[in-house]
Amino acid sequence: MNSTEINALLPFLLQRENVARYEEGTIIIGDRCQYPFEKAFVYCNDVESAAKAIEDMVTQGGGPQYVALYAMALVAKQVSGKPLDQQREAFEAAKVRLVKTRPTNTSLARRLEKAMQVVHQALDETKNVEAALLTWIEKIRDESYQVHITCGELGASLIEDGDGILTMCFAETSFLLTLALAHKSGKRIQVYTPETRPYLQGARLTAPSIHELGIPVKIIGDNMPAYVLSQGKIQKYFTAADLVTMDGHVVNKIGTFQNAITAHHHGVPFFVFAFAPDKFKPDRASIEIEERDPAEMRSCRGTATTIAEIDAYYPAFDITPPYLVSGVITPKGILSAYDLPRYFA
Amino acid sequence: MNSTEINALLPFLLQRENVARYEEGTIIIGDRCQYPFEKAFVYCNDVESAAKAIEDMVTQGGGPQYVALYAMALVAKQVSGKPLDQQREAFEAAKVRLVKTRPTNTSLARRLEKAMQVVHQALDETKNVEAALLTWIEKIRDESYQVHITCGELGASLIEDGDGILTMCFAETSFLLTLALAHKSGKRIQVYTPETRPYLQGARLTAPSIHELGIPVKIIGDNMPAYVLSQGKIQKYFTAADLVTMDGHVVNKIGTFQNAITAHHHGVPFFVFAFAPDKFKPDRASIEIEERDPAEMRSCRGTATTIAEIDAYYPAFDITPPYLVSGVITPKGILSAYDLPRYFA
Repeated sequence: MNSTEINALLPFLLQRENVARYEEGTIIIGDRCQYPFEKAFVYCNDVESAAKAIEDMVTQGGGPQYVALYAMALVAKQVSGKPLDQQREAFEAAKVRLVKTRPTNTSLARRLEKAMQVVHQALDETKNVEAALLTWIEKIRDESYQVHITCGELGASLIEDGDGILTMCFAETSFLLTLALAHKSGKRIQVYTPETRPYLQGARLTAPSIHELGIPVKIIGDNMPAYVLSQGKIQKYFTAADLVTMDGHVVNKIGTFQNAITAHHHGVPFFVFAFAPDKFKPDRASIEIEERDPAEMRSCRGTATTIAEIDAYYPAFDITPPYLVSGVITPKGILSAYDLPRYFA
Repeated sequence: MNSTEINALLPFLLQRENVARYEEGTIIIGDRCQYPFEKAFVYCNDVESAAKAIEDMVTQGGGPQYVALYAMALVAKQVSGKPLDQQREAFEAAKVRLVKTRPTNTSLARRLEKAMQVVHQALDETKNVEAALLTWIEKIRDESYQVHITCGELGASLIEDGDGILTMCFAETSFLLTLALAHKSGKRIQVYTPETRPYLQGARLTAPSIHELGIPVKIIGDNMPAYVLSQGKIQKYFTAADLVTMDGHVVNKIGTFQNAITAHHHGVPFFVFAFAPDKFKPDRASIEIEERDPAEMRSCRGTATTIAEIDAYYPAFDITPPYLVSGVITPKGILSAYDLPRYFA
């Protein structure tokens, strides 16, 4: 499937040029803070504004890494022609700033290290650094969509006609392609998406994106999955993963774990999309769960839900152990959570 | 324990005169829609405004029945001295209107039938109907607080020093007395209360009420209980019940069921407060779960959480089966969910 064909299966938010694109010294980013109320874009002309856009959650999922890489291309354009050591210094400073946007996201840091290799090689070979970076970025984006297509096809193969599908948070391109491909092949499905407090990714991103594809979807409260399961309305549970440890623990948005428990309780399988298990995370002990500002649990899109003096607790992610995971959907197949080293074999 | 002593253990919202009181032809109702942002009251001078207050959720839990009964006293004051048949007609019309405020709440209807008996007896005996009603209402309120104290003492007996306690929605007076009595006896506790979307009873009512008592409480998202349980922070799970069937199914605010599953998964017992099992509800099949307007799942305190064209599903209650219930706390003791007919033995 080529890029245009893939784009045609995707909703606004996940279409390649809307995630992020680079146009002659400007990074254009689809604004997830405005969607679905507005389909807006944020325009960045320097590293600092790109870094801020990442920090302010303008983009999420796959978006931040492409914004960060385009920011390196932007530096290349701006420093082109300057003395070599000044250029290398500017790239290094940009990399440091961009890594800082998501301190716990090691894959962003690794991507930026790779970008630095592309930069240095182009400089050594006196090639156009901006062009070298853009060629490389589009190549990794191409590869990434091929992975999504492979995972989407595997996901769609698990769906049966008439299935009710539970998800959590915004499971991004592999999941949306799963739904799109199942739908396209004539399978009737009904998706249920918990709203995902406090940021409401389920209500703001997932449900409107699925709705755009013409697939029936209903928002439910984060307190409702078990009841919907008990009614027999759910046959499959799919989520993305922020990371999967080598021993099969799934780290994802808070709520994923309790939905996995209640799905298991009702005999419903849980499938997780992951590009790969994380070689650097052997097990549960290697994970640190980010706790965010409790104040975020006292409001909803700017409206107070209680008074300021009440304490709150906001762990942003949770960990689902492998015994609750029916399969990890990777570009190398649907793997058992107990057999993930096979991915690298 | 007398009324003043009980009141001293309770937060603003549950203090007897703040739930609802009657002052010379005016019903004064603690306004749960304003709390905790304001400690406000709604004043009703006729049946229609009292009925509207119940319908608009100004009061909940034990409140609606007392508001409805005080509305009957208000009718008595207004029709006093009129021909008997006109009086009886006015009471009948008021009863019909008040029953209509909560069509699925059979206990409200039964209370109003009892009030009609008090009315007819007072009329037959040419006594002051308003006074007869008020005497009877205060008597049933006294009895009700005695039940709460008994249940609160039973609840407190289950709590150990250092316990983390999970709840759901607003479990009202028996639960708050449980916490107050445990706290007073020197047991250190930490309560976690899910915010309870979409109405936020956990964030608006439960957490501020517990905070008023000086007991540590944290609001969490409805998607967080399992993760908090997995951290070993919870030792007991307590909720109220809208009703308990004779065969031990617990009907309560949506989310109660999934918390019960995840508590059970982590070896944490679940206790339910109930004045009594419901003699008229033998089993799960006798329950109809109210589904509310899906639009309520698309906003939070008036702020849109998504766009209007997205579908939603809002079942307001769920059903927890008896195998997940560790005990039903009643004025006749902590009963097994499998042995509730003993209550009437």
